[in-house]
Amino acid sequence: MALTPARTMPGVLELLPLDQIAFQRMLDTIRRNYERFGFLPVETPVIEHSDVLLTKTGGETERQVYFVQSTGALGKEGTPELALRFDLTVPLARYVAEHERDLSFPFRRYQMQKVYRGERAQRGRFREFYQCDIDVIGKDALSVRYDAEIPAVIYSVFRELDIGAFTIQLNNRKMMRGFFESLGIADGEQQTLVLREVDKLDKRGADYVRDTLTGEAFGLSADVAAKILDVVQVRSTSLQDAFDKLDALGSGSDTMEQGRSELKEVLGLLRDFGVPESHYALNLSIMRGLDYYTGTVYETTLNDHPQIGSICSGGRYENLASQYTKSKLPGVGISIGLTRLYWQLRDAGLIDTARSTVDVLVTQMDEAQMPAYLALASELRSAGIATEVVLEGGKLGKQFKYADRAGIRFVIVLGEDEIAKGVVTVKDLRREDQFEVPREELIKTLRVELEQAAAMG
Amino acid sequence: MALTPARTMPGVLELLPLDQIAFQRMLDTIRRNYERFGFLPVETPVIEHSDVLLTKTGGETERQVYFVQSTGALGKEGTPELALRFDLTVPLARYVAEHERDLSFPFRRYQMQKVYRGERAQRGRFREFYQCDIDVIGKDALSVRYDAEIPAVIYSVFRELDIGAFTIQLNNRKMMRGFFESLGIADGEQQTLVLREVDKLDKRGADYVRDTLTGEAFGLSADVAAKILDVVQVRSTSLQDAFDKLDALGSGSDTMEQGRSELKEVLGLLRDFGVPESHYALNLSIMRGLDYYTGTVYETTLNDHPQIGSICSGGRYENLASQYTKSKLPGVGISIGLTRLYWQLRDAGLIDTARSTVDVLVTQMDEAQMPAYLALASELRSAGIATEVVLEGGKLGKQFKYADRAGIRFVIVLGEDEIAKGVVTVKDLRREDQFEVPREELIKTLRVELEQAAAMG
Repeated sequence: MALTPARTMPGVLELLPLDQIAFQRMLDTIRRNYERFGFLPVETPVIEHSDVLLTKTGGETERQVYFVQSTGALGKEGTPELALRFDLTVPLARYVAEHERDLSFPFRRYQMQKVYRGERAQRGRFREFYQCDIDVIGKDALSVRYDAEIPAVIYSVFRELDIGAFTIQLNNRKMMRGFFESLGIADGEQQTLVLREVDKLDKRGADYVRDTLTGEAFGLSADVAAKILDVVQVRSTSLQDAFDKLDALGSGSDTMEQGRSELKEVLGLLRDFGVPESHYALNLSIMRGLDYYTGTVYETTLNDHPQIGSICSGGRYENLASQYTKSKLPGVGISIGLTRLYWQLRDAGLIDTARSTVDVLVTQMDEAQMPAYLALASELRSAGIATEVVLEGGKLGKQFKYADRAGIRFVIVLGEDEIAKGVVTVKDLRREDQFEVPREELIKTLRVELEQAAAMG
Repeated sequence: MALTPARTMPGVLELLPLDQIAFQRMLDTIRRNYERFGFLPVETPVIEHSDVLLTKTGGETERQVYFVQSTGALGKEGTPELALRFDLTVPLARYVAEHERDLSFPFRRYQMQKVYRGERAQRGRFREFYQCDIDVIGKDALSVRYDAEIPAVIYSVFRELDIGAFTIQLNNRKMMRGFFESLGIADGEQQTLVLREVDKLDKRGADYVRDTLTGEAFGLSADVAAKILDVVQVRSTSLQDAFDKLDALGSGSDTMEQGRSELKEVLGLLRDFGVPESHYALNLSIMRGLDYYTGTVYETTLNDHPQIGSICSGGRYENLASQYTKSKLPGVGISIGLTRLYWQLRDAGLIDTARSTVDVLVTQMDEAQMPAYLALASELRSAGIATEVVLEGGKLGKQFKYADRAGIRFVIVLGEDEIAKGVVTVKDLRREDQFEVPREELIKTLRVELEQAAAMG
């Protein structure tokens, strides 16, 4: 039989076990923090009805959707009935609308699952990737205080992920909309186009952007263009500085004042939520999906790796599920794109393969002692120590090599002599050390070592 | 705008948060046990190349495959290039073949992900469901001892899942093939057909099956039919009984003897692996996928709920990935179909919604004390106690009701009086009790209660 080449499709991240362990630890850390803040787990199916998924989305998203057909449905005309989710927000909206009567509001959910996008194949672009989302959904109304809780969660997650210094950057869409309106740019689409130009600031420089804004396409006055460029470059260096810079924007329309007052309330609350001033800043260039977010918006960047871009983004929205229900469901949430983040961190050398989840390898020195090896392994496992037993046999050197390659730290050797003496020989492959320990003290000894190692990270 | 009805596709199990927590706890228990036995995590993409997925599978499976197409690929002729995995075994084979040089053998992996099958919509049939698999893959050879390790893992998992008494049932395909050959039924397909009839024993009774086997379609002699019916009804009541019944089968072909000796070795080792005799039995009616398994086969049933069928099945196979690689990769593994199992257990009333993952709700008695509430919540979270703060305000009664409905056990009330006295009022909604505790003892008190509750299950 001809062999089929074993390969994955492009745009997926498939990991070797020790990398998978590192990835899994990140997932666990995020989940632990989400739960600590009182978010509840939700999982939704990967496949949804196409009409449910595609109610709100525009052309760009639609082109990236993966449709799903069972064999029987292949070749049918028209849009296939089923598709893979492309984010966790649309499924959340569907979930809340569908189960509204069974949920308690404010509804606080976390969801950590994979989403699918038919992206063009390109380095660093993923067609399958994890999103780790939290959202708080209110019924009819939701206090702006929840907007201040979100950075507290972000802070807690990234502090524990321990991937370097980071800054949570905040802005308020309402304030920015009011600001643009005050400059005579009232149309939402026009605002979008202007912002798209402004986004090029870092790459093309202020002169280029100013020329474009005052040029034919936009026809803004030099004064207006300057005001825009001034404002979007505002960054704060402390909480007081943020307040000062917000005040310095001058008075504006009701919309702008409302947005500014929300933003000030959120910033003021961050202290009470325990987020240190060093870890957040005002950044008036942050806009996020303009059609969707209506108030506070967040991005989070690694101070030493700005090129990675935002590692956690989100914001406040007016109404989660207007396409499915007449209930008004305002909310606020964020998303961590973990697959991309992990890949970038690894690429930047900030993350290593993990040690094995297997703590101990019990070698097979003497086949006749197999019952003793198995009994020892059972004891270790009962004590919560992950243990593998060599069942196949072979040379001891080969068994050590296997442990080393597999990233297992402790190797146990137990021969006739040791059994007679009531001891166990432990080889610590990390410390390149070897010691004998009385059999009845083995568990205690290993536990101390393992807990120490876990505490050291 | 007309509303789109919010609905999931048929054949998926979408859970409310407290059910999701119960489900998640089962997943966590399985994972913990798999890791304790030294299995390493692997995740593979949900989407695979169709030609990779469909090398080995027959018509039935193929008809159940979900194909995947990005918008650009819709309408193209022929079989779509991508499809969703329908099990975790084919992706494992692909994974091992693709990464062979980077893996250490015996390769012990666990994988707990969802798989997809275009099943007809039917109660209890799922189109999306979790499989929780372990496999040990050898290079060229794999000792039969690993076949005895698998029931030790099954025992450990289901003991900790705590869903009632269970029995791991064992058989050996090689022995059964030898047995059938000795009766003149040498053809594999013919064996399959006979076994399919034998499978009707429980439903149709021995007379019906005997008549069919001796009837036109099979044309077996009464003697042969009787021998088959005798053998497939063999069950053991103890290890010694299992040995006796295996011996009582009489001598057979080399194939049969080889299978019998494997089965005896596996049974004999179970004791050393710490599996109590009460939890396993010989069952010569167990066959599993005949084309695939070649040696030991397992099924696991709940003693008090036989109607649920096997909750964990698997076995030994000769060669995992012959469609992708020339390497010989024998292995042994099992799979738990957790979605179906969870659904059945819940249906049978054996599983309840979980308590919330949120331990504590800090109420908002007095808006002005918000900083105190947030500081308290931060303290609790730092101590690992999952805490939600009411940020919206409203009547205290309504806040209690929310906690009750959301399944949160402890509600904290902190007013001006309490703050002045340095105490906290804790309402235990489970015990319907209320007590005051000095602020500095709050964490200790709650920890004791929560650890006690966790220990009680």
